[in-house]
Amino acid sequence: MANIQQVAQKAGVSVATVSRVLNNNTTVSPETRLRVENAIKDLNYEPSMLGRNLRNSESRLLLVLIPSISNPFYSEIINGIQNTAIANNYNILLCETDSNPERENIYFNMVKNKLADGIISMDPAVNMQKLYELAENHPIILCSEYDEGGSLPYVTIDSELAAYHAVKHLIKLGHKNIALINSDEKFLYARQRRAGYEKALKEFDIPVHKEWIYNTIHVDFQDGVQAMRKLFQSNERPSAVFAVSDTLAIGALKEINVRGLKVPEDMAIVGFDKINFSNMTNPTLTTVAQPMYEMGCVAAGMLMNSIKGIRVDSIILDHELIIRESTMG
Amino acid sequence: MANIQQVAQKAGVSVATVSRVLNNNTTVSPETRLRVENAIKDLNYEPSMLGRNLRNSESRLLLVLIPSISNPFYSEIINGIQNTAIANNYNILLCETDSNPERENIYFNMVKNKLADGIISMDPAVNMQKLYELAENHPIILCSEYDEGGSLPYVTIDSELAAYHAVKHLIKLGHKNIALINSDEKFLYARQRRAGYEKALKEFDIPVHKEWIYNTIHVDFQDGVQAMRKLFQSNERPSAVFAVSDTLAIGALKEINVRGLKVPEDMAIVGFDKINFSNMTNPTLTTVAQPMYEMGCVAAGMLMNSIKGIRVDSIILDHELIIRESTMG
Repeated sequence: MANIQQVAQKAGVSVATVSRVLNNNTTVSPETRLRVENAIKDLNYEPSMLGRNLRNSESRLLLVLIPSISNPFYSEIINGIQNTAIANNYNILLCETDSNPERENIYFNMVKNKLADGIISMDPAVNMQKLYELAENHPIILCSEYDEGGSLPYVTIDSELAAYHAVKHLIKLGHKNIALINSDEKFLYARQRRAGYEKALKEFDIPVHKEWIYNTIHVDFQDGVQAMRKLFQSNERPSAVFAVSDTLAIGALKEINVRGLKVPEDMAIVGFDKINFSNMTNPTLTTVAQPMYEMGCVAAGMLMNSIKGIRVDSIILDHELIIRESTMG
Repeated sequence: MANIQQVAQKAGVSVATVSRVLNNNTTVSPETRLRVENAIKDLNYEPSMLGRNLRNSESRLLLVLIPSISNPFYSEIINGIQNTAIANNYNILLCETDSNPERENIYFNMVKNKLADGIISMDPAVNMQKLYELAENHPIILCSEYDEGGSLPYVTIDSELAAYHAVKHLIKLGHKNIALINSDEKFLYARQRRAGYEKALKEFDIPVHKEWIYNTIHVDFQDGVQAMRKLFQSNERPSAVFAVSDTLAIGALKEINVRGLKVPEDMAIVGFDKINFSNMTNPTLTTVAQPMYEMGCVAAGMLMNSIKGIRVDSIILDHELIIRESTMG
């Protein structure tokens, strides 16, 4: 393949002039520009973007860290990030960390090595210490999960309030025996959603039953199935379940169906996220809608501002309780 | 931030020596190496990977083109690609094209500009002409969807045979009135699955009813719902449905449930892909399993070989019919 020297030779100009044409420098005369452009075309020359990025030291790439691509919760957020990024001439690099520190390091190094301009982290298991180290020199935004009291800007919802609304909805329907299928409480959102669950119970003088609180390690469908099996083993069966993720709720619903029980008559269920699937189950799932697409757009906007050196503030978006068949029949 | 000149000055060596240390060149003495490494540490110097990649002209990035991140079919394939890539010191760049030519161009240009070493395309709507142009100078592998009779290497399954098996399963259960919910037949896999459907019917002397064949534009849940609504409007109602994607089948199942009909008693359903959710529906979905994870691993292996200049041949992987409640009660 042709190199820049050959282009310069063919056009009868210096390499610096070819470079000026490539960088849209206005000091080149129209005639010279045309000669260079024709030489580029004739020689089928492809300028190396790596070289060009090296000079203006930006990659126009945004890293997006997600724990797992399998959870549909992330798809909509990513759509928002992607559309916003592309509209601003950025591309996104989707990095599935599997909550694996080695993989995380690979991606952190890409930013250190200027292969990417900044990070949006959606991984609740991300190594916060390393993220803070990186944040000293590189723009980082947290999306959905964040660090309470920390200095990294984030966009999220009020998880405690959202969980409170979900559980209050069940209480208003007459439920007193409400189980909680929560994820690992090492994650902030899990602690906040548990706090919201307990707050709602307390407000209505309903005691918290420890055996009705089940913590899963992951948030896949199968974890919801397992959690529901455990809840069926408790001495007194709950009449309703609040699960902190639609994937968990859908797994729980499956297990309830398998046992021949009816939702919501025998057991009401509320999920969290409003993923696409949540409308395809039978019955459809009552769930807390997160503005996932908007969250992605906001996160991308914050990161791009941060890259430009503009100060960004954290943002808390609104949630909505979507009432469907799994609580209202 | 420190630059390479400052590192050289502090270590009392030339810039070329620092570069040799960074590139693990063995001609540097251990003492000099240590001096340079200490200087790098003291100055908190971060070598630009862009510059290093420019020299050895590889990005260690593989582009993966998918039409939409929302279809869970792609998640498992991507897991396979990602794990194989990372094990070989490559990263993947996940590119959601939305079947939008402008976005495709952005990604094609990344390869042209050497920001990525090659492409795995899973987008059935990809611009084949542009892909062939790119393939003249850059490694490209097609995954799942491919170009029949074309020269680009691919990994896929035998879609016609898989569809034939699915429909034959329904015929063996006594069904004669079998509808087909197919995607857009501009896609090769859709044409092949229709051929398999017709082949099975023909083998058992069952005539093809045009009004029982419905083509969707997309393959989202909602498209399956719409397709089923149309099928319910046909003069004679089919007793079974074969859908070419689990997302379509799950949408169809939802619509059947909404109408108060029972699956499989009133209507049997077979899907295609074996996405995770296909086991969470009520009833669980009979489906054609594609070896999605393996397909991803194979595609990544083929692309990395192709980057190394090794000739790669196309591969057809096995499928499996997974019989569950939606056909067997």
